[in-house]
Amino acid sequence: MRKVDPEKHAARRQVIVDAAIACFARKGFHGTSTAEICAEAGMSPGNLFHYFPTKHAIITAIVEEERQETAEFFRELHESPDLFAALLGFMDVVLGLAADPVYSSLALEIAAEAMRDEHIGELVAANDAELRAALSALIKAASGRGQIDAAIDPEAGARWIAAIIDGIFGRIAVDPGFKPDQERPMMHLLLTRFLCPKP
Amino acid sequence: MRKVDPEKHAARRQVIVDAAIACFARKGFHGTSTAEICAEAGMSPGNLFHYFPTKHAIITAIVEEERQETAEFFRELHESPDLFAALLGFMDVVLGLAADPVYSSLALEIAAEAMRDEHIGELVAANDAELRAALSALIKAASGRGQIDAAIDPEAGARWIAAIIDGIFGRIAVDPGFKPDQERPMMHLLLTRFLCPKP
Repeated sequence: MRKVDPEKHAARRQVIVDAAIACFARKGFHGTSTAEICAEAGMSPGNLFHYFPTKHAIITAIVEEERQETAEFFRELHESPDLFAALLGFMDVVLGLAADPVYSSLALEIAAEAMRDEHIGELVAANDAELRAALSALIKAASGRGQIDAAIDPEAGARWIAAIIDGIFGRIAVDPGFKPDQERPMMHLLLTRFLCPKP
Repeated sequence: MRKVDPEKHAARRQVIVDAAIACFARKGFHGTSTAEICAEAGMSPGNLFHYFPTKHAIITAIVEEERQETAEFFRELHESPDLFAALLGFMDVVLGLAADPVYSSLALEIAAEAMRDEHIGELVAANDAELRAALSALIKAASGRGQIDAAIDPEAGARWIAAIIDGIFGRIAVDPGFKPDQERPMMHLLLTRFLCPKP
């Protein structure tokens, strides 16, 4: 029996995930066939099946990848000297992702799919809970250092920041005049006034 | 030929729309058959077809009804002596709608459908543009009276309030801990600090 090289296996898996993301962003989950993902990845259906038995398994992998990337980002964030500036930096990254047509299409596809598919819905809710926990911990730590207003309850503050993140992607869906790369000053004003008002 | 009584016609139409809303909230647009809408409305398929040739036409009517109700609400809002208080009142109504399981399910269904169906997408985008125009006019008028900070550009401010509204419904979709009726104080704090900071 051939041995599986884990690095090679992970690399092939990533090729498929990236190909699927490109297809999903263009035509949606339901509009994309596994044959199209194979073509985009330059792989035979049998080969693809070896890595992902279903299209659903690929979507699951995408949501899991998103979770890991967010967790990694927040681990690094906590090392910043100014935690409010770090939060603004995170929100700038969110705006940047919203400005990326592939990422934002995919995010909106995942949100819609989460309403239709119970398993994807659970994964997305778990990711959201993890994001809120990370935001809440950041607010709490920033509050302790006087970098965020102590009157903001960390959990409630995290909820409303998560709402603002959802809202940014909501804008992409319905408002062609919303240009994320031009919205940074207004977002900074909103968050600064909300979280650290002048005494 | 029988004459059509316009009032009776409108009332029958409304019965169908209300029945459809109840079905859509329970099972989604795609999970609901016209037969189920007929059963809920207590009407024969032939009779339903007379008012709405397709399920799509019913969804269109729901989005149009939403548009009219929002427009009516804002017409009355402008007569308030305190326009910032009026804006907070509107946002309280939004939170109330988010707390209503039928309304919030329907709103999320419509948002998902807007991504799949071009015509529904256009209608939703037009409603959103109208809402933003109303919010922008309200901010401008409030700013003129010193009830909202003049540093807030009305159009940009309206955009971010619309994002917050989207975000509230986003919370309903993914965060079971988000209880709209308990979130009012935090929402008021957020909007008050954003739009009318203390000098």
